[in-house]
Amino acid sequence: MRIGVIGLGRMGGNIVRRLMDAGHECVVYDVSEAAVQTLAGEGATGSGSIADLVAKLEPPRAVWVMLPEGKITADAVSALAEAMSADDVIIDGGNSFYKDDINRGAALKEKGIHYVDVGTSGGVWGRERGYCLMIGGDKEAVERLDPIFKTLAPGRGDIPETPKRDGRDPRVLEGYMHCGPTGAGHFVKMIHNGIEYGLMQAYAEGFDILKTKASKELPDDRRFDLDVADIAEVWRRGSVVSSWLLDLTASALAGDPALDAFEGRVADSGEGRWTIEAAIEQAVPVDVLATALFARFRSRQDHSFADRLLSAMRFQFGGHAEAAGPEKKEVKT
Amino acid sequence: MRIGVIGLGRMGGNIVRRLMDAGHECVVYDVSEAAVQTLAGEGATGSGSIADLVAKLEPPRAVWVMLPEGKITADAVSALAEAMSADDVIIDGGNSFYKDDINRGAALKEKGIHYVDVGTSGGVWGRERGYCLMIGGDKEAVERLDPIFKTLAPGRGDIPETPKRDGRDPRVLEGYMHCGPTGAGHFVKMIHNGIEYGLMQAYAEGFDILKTKASKELPDDRRFDLDVADIAEVWRRGSVVSSWLLDLTASALAGDPALDAFEGRVADSGEGRWTIEAAIEQAVPVDVLATALFARFRSRQDHSFADRLLSAMRFQFGGHAEAAGPEKKEVKT
Amino acid sequence: MRIGVIGLGRMGGNIVRRLMDAGHECVVYDVSEAAVQTLAGEGATGSGSIADLVAKLEPPRAVWVMLPEGKITADAVSALAEAMSADDVIIDGGNSFYKDDINRGAALKEKGIHYVDVGTSGGVWGRERGYCLMIGGDKEAVERLDPIFKTLAPGRGDIPETPKRDGRDPRVLEGYMHCGPTGAGHFVKMIHNGIEYGLMQAYAEGFDILKTKASKELPDDRRFDLDVADIAEVWRRGSVVSSWLLDLTASALAGDPALDAFEGRVADSGEGRWTIEAAIEQAVPVDVLATALFARFRSRQDHSFADRLLSAMRFQFGGHAEAAGPEKKEVKT
Amino acid sequence: MRIGVIGLGRMGGNIVRRLMDAGHECVVYDVSEAAVQTLAGEGATGSGSIADLVAKLEPPRAVWVMLPEGKITADAVSALAEAMSADDVIIDGGNSFYKDDINRGAALKEKGIHYVDVGTSGGVWGRERGYCLMIGGDKEAVERLDPIFKTLAPGRGDIPETPKRDGRDPRVLEGYMHCGPTGAGHFVKMIHNGIEYGLMQAYAEGFDILKTKASKELPDDRRFDLDVADIAEVWRRGSVVSSWLLDLTASALAGDPALDAFEGRVADSGEGRWTIEAAIEQAVPVDVLATALFARFRSRQDHSFADRLLSAMRFQFGGHAEAAGPEKKEVKT
Repeated sequence: MRIGVIGLGRMGGNIVRRLMDAGHECVVYDVSEAAVQTLAGEGATGSGSIADLVAKLEPPRAVWVMLPEGKITADAVSALAEAMSADDVIIDGGNSFYKDDINRGAALKEKGIHYVDVGTSGGVWGRERGYCLMIGGDKEAVERLDPIFKTLAPGRGDIPETPKRDGRDPRVLEGYMHCGPTGAGHFVKMIHNGIEYGLMQAYAEGFDILKTKASKELPDDRRFDLDVADIAEVWRRGSVVSSWLLDLTASALAGDPALDAFEGRVADSGEGRWTIEAAIEQAVPVDVLATALFARFRSRQDHSFADRLLSAMRFQFGGHAEAAGPEKKEVKT
Repeated sequence: MRIGVIGLGRMGGNIVRRLMDAGHECVVYDVSEAAVQTLAGEGATGSGSIADLVAKLEPPRAVWVMLPEGKITADAVSALAEAMSADDVIIDGGNSFYKDDINRGAALKEKGIHYVDVGTSGGVWGRERGYCLMIGGDKEAVERLDPIFKTLAPGRGDIPETPKRDGRDPRVLEGYMHCGPTGAGHFVKMIHNGIEYGLMQAYAEGFDILKTKASKELPDDRRFDLDVADIAEVWRRGSVVSSWLLDLTASALAGDPALDAFEGRVADSGEGRWTIEAAIEQAVPVDVLATALFARFRSRQDHSFADRLLSAMRFQFGGHAEAAGPEKKEVKT
Repeated sequence: MRIGVIGLGRMGGNIVRRLMDAGHECVVYDVSEAAVQTLAGEGATGSGSIADLVAKLEPPRAVWVMLPEGKITADAVSALAEAMSADDVIIDGGNSFYKDDINRGAALKEKGIHYVDVGTSGGVWGRERGYCLMIGGDKEAVERLDPIFKTLAPGRGDIPETPKRDGRDPRVLEGYMHCGPTGAGHFVKMIHNGIEYGLMQAYAEGFDILKTKASKELPDDRRFDLDVADIAEVWRRGSVVSSWLLDLTASALAGDPALDAFEGRVADSGEGRWTIEAAIEQAVPVDVLATALFARFRSRQDHSFADRLLSAMRFQFGGHAEAAGPEKKEVKT
Repeated sequence: MRIGVIGLGRMGGNIVRRLMDAGHECVVYDVSEAAVQTLAGEGATGSGSIADLVAKLEPPRAVWVMLPEGKITADAVSALAEAMSADDVIIDGGNSFYKDDINRGAALKEKGIHYVDVGTSGGVWGRERGYCLMIGGDKEAVERLDPIFKTLAPGRGDIPETPKRDGRDPRVLEGYMHCGPTGAGHFVKMIHNGIEYGLMQAYAEGFDILKTKASKELPDDRRFDLDVADIAEVWRRGSVVSSWLLDLTASALAGDPALDAFEGRVADSGEGRWTIEAAIEQAVPVDVLATALFARFRSRQDHSFADRLLSAMRFQFGGHAEAAGPEKKEVKT
């Protein structure tokens, strides 16, 4: 089918490519003219503005917005709503906050425009592997877009079937799911990312112990100089902790076992933060997910005011000077 | 090759079967005669005692011990050492504490007996999928046992190869790894299990938010009644959080989406605890791994003394009564 | 001076009493007529409605609102604003969210009404000990109310002076502080309560270890049956962990060392939750404050979906049954 | 009474002084001759070796050992045991591991020597304020030493009495407590320090939020430039979070509100680590105490391998570069 795509960054560009590979026609727009040109060169129909993009589609139209969440997405949706007509569909495939979706969807409904929120997982690998899609919105619009979702999703591939799924929605086996009403798609994607933080931190802490097991501070006979790249690789094969994130870890460590290419300042995005806020709203204890987020905050600071206050208190009550090295225990005299 | 196996429980029995399927000869022993009979019926050579088992092997012998860690394993190893001779090999395939391995290995070395510690991951699925093996011990013994390890490990299968591994140990691609000297195998397995706890807790917390998103305490327009079984399934396909543990989660939820079969009292084993102690010994912050362990401790209590003390303090300073329901915030007046 | 007080619960009633003890005149209102009558009997001027209360004060008026945060406080402030005139002052002494203060203050400013937010700590002990006051608002209004704040605050008492405070605001030594513009008072109070949760949880965990040190699961020679009431008492005297919360703990334990009067379902209020959200907004790692909040969430559940999912996964990969007792480690076979 | 003291550092020296001030006679020894000279100049009897110190006491002797825990204390106790006779008492006032006490006490018992473990809290302030003493050992030895404990403890002072303590041990009100058999004193002190870590971290995190509330990353109207020194001071007066650690915090911040004197590398000592291990041994969830310990580990590293691995994974799946500044959220495109 014919679809508009706004936002041609890493994710948006590859989505267009995957759609075109399957025979869909894409009308594309981005603030970067170069990005539009590139995709036009690959077969897409370029456009010079959101209004122009809308004009190049026929009703009922469908436009996929793939932009950074917040004001940028909000502005694009407003501009689209201005140019579109009743029964058209706007798809927000980015990482919007689900409460924004709910408000946005309600406002568009008054104009008769459908709003579909799609959580899209798969990163830079999605073009080839397909994207896992978590979809929120009304049934009619979601079903109308089925050819798009089917194309973007990975399909069944060779992933073994889970038993006892008789009578359940078969689209799920293709890698896309209609999760519920507007907001439900991004809500599920948000939790997905919250879990992702927790998983990543679990591996990170475990590999940190393995790595520092070679530390000179340990007694000779309890010190091991372990090959973390091989450990990641062997765990991919038959162990309980095998996962796609472990595949990526093995990949990273094979080329650079000391990870010298990285300094260790780890960014976080809205979903990780909102996951904790959702948990608090629902009174769900989420110690692991929260601590994984806080570890990222901490990774971006050299020393915190909190750390200095600890040192100040210790100096006050015990006259203790600060620690010299990373593994040094204090010696009290 | 010919090998003795002591301990014919869930793990040990399947190890014998996987070995025999590949043509190895197994002499088996267990305190349960019935367990010995069963495997004898499947082609193993039964034995009536550890001494009898040793007698039925020819030097240089190899005996795989697959028993609960602690005194039971220690006693079996002692009895074996008594009956064995120099150049024999004892393999501890259980979940022993790596410092016990080091002490045990040193003691056996005086008798000239090799001691090989093998962390074995794969659970009840191992017979079919193969076991991921993490091996510690001296090179000679480990190489002598290679046919055994090769059989037990999953083999390359269809797991895609990690790039940039040229020149690295190819055994790792078969699913077994010589991690280092005595103790190194169980050390790596211990961290594996520590990570496993963290991964499991990350999924558990995320699915808890999804589940309680249907809670009546939330405003109507922010409540979603999400299908957690389908969500687990869709995440297996193209998402960043896909993993073997997620496969199992999808399996569990497909048959019993409310998990009514479980009460929620979660056991923990030595490895999870030792991982935290190793981290403390090495001064590595492991917030996620520790909190995952503590969540299991907490799951086995109805209410803790800690909880009651919080209530007591609140009553003292504010005259506050205890909370009524799970999501109730206190209303201060 | 003459002041109106709305909300005559545990906190509001005692505030009126402390003010009247010092010679201030209070005009009081509450939805409960009985509460109004009680305080009228102690010397306050009763009133039958917010409008009536306002009518019984002379401009420029000051009214202290001491109500549960949220809609109840918002409604009272609206009703007051309706009845008041320019240059009057509304004081919110409750536990409102500081962003609500900022919005409320801006709306009232358009009518020329001052809005002062006061975080009030001291609980049921405040009438006698005085209240620690954290104040936000414009300088003029805050200074006009100084006699009220001075009366409510504890005064210097016999608390030793902190060195190097020359040139700093002396009001702080009396126990009240002008923290900044509107919202700053409740912001500081919010963090105060966040810290309170962390402190309480630290004591709770420590005493839990002391209590369970008598557990039958431990080896005989490492088990101590410790007297937690005496331990709390001795720590009040010269130790690093002495605090008012410890005084209260000692009090609670002296009368009921097993804390049998409490079940252990611990409520939480807005401030604890907002503290975490503020930290997330500012990218500050707050592992202890968050975990203290989550412990309260957990305390109100018998078993969580998260716990059941852990059990389900363990059953899937290892065929493990659930744990029997609280201290049971799993025995793998 | 007459007592020997070995170890004349910050703690030991002041203990000697407090004892002599009250009329006790001290025979002192330290590896540093200068330390011995200094105290000899203040009235103590110096000695040149442990044997010499023992010779200068009359049976039944009492010697207080105040040395760093571990080998140094163990060696001193061995040397003492060599020189002492049955019915003498060795007091370990340092921070020994309670399991070491139990082993040491059992060994000394065979020679008829009493061993008393004393957890000593009070830091550099103890000479003036007195030390809170947590004592383990047999009744006879503990009672014999009562004059020493009574002198070192703070005494009742003006700390208000806790109600409902009738019939309880009155020594506790003086600030010293016989906690139980050998090891119980250091066990209680260990938990005391574990709690101390948790309390400190709670304050540290709260003040960190207050401090960073001035961050440029926040919207103008939600930013407050708060005076943390005044906030610490006002909280000392009538608030729920008042404590001795808060007194020290106020002191530190009054002189140096930005804490520029400290870098933020925070040492930890054995007790904080052993507290977590004891909790694990007893299956008690101690999220706050553990996370407080881990925050100290983290404070001593610039970037961890864990952090780098998170960055590496993010690069692998999303092509994400590392974060630029501390509060930067990732922008996904």
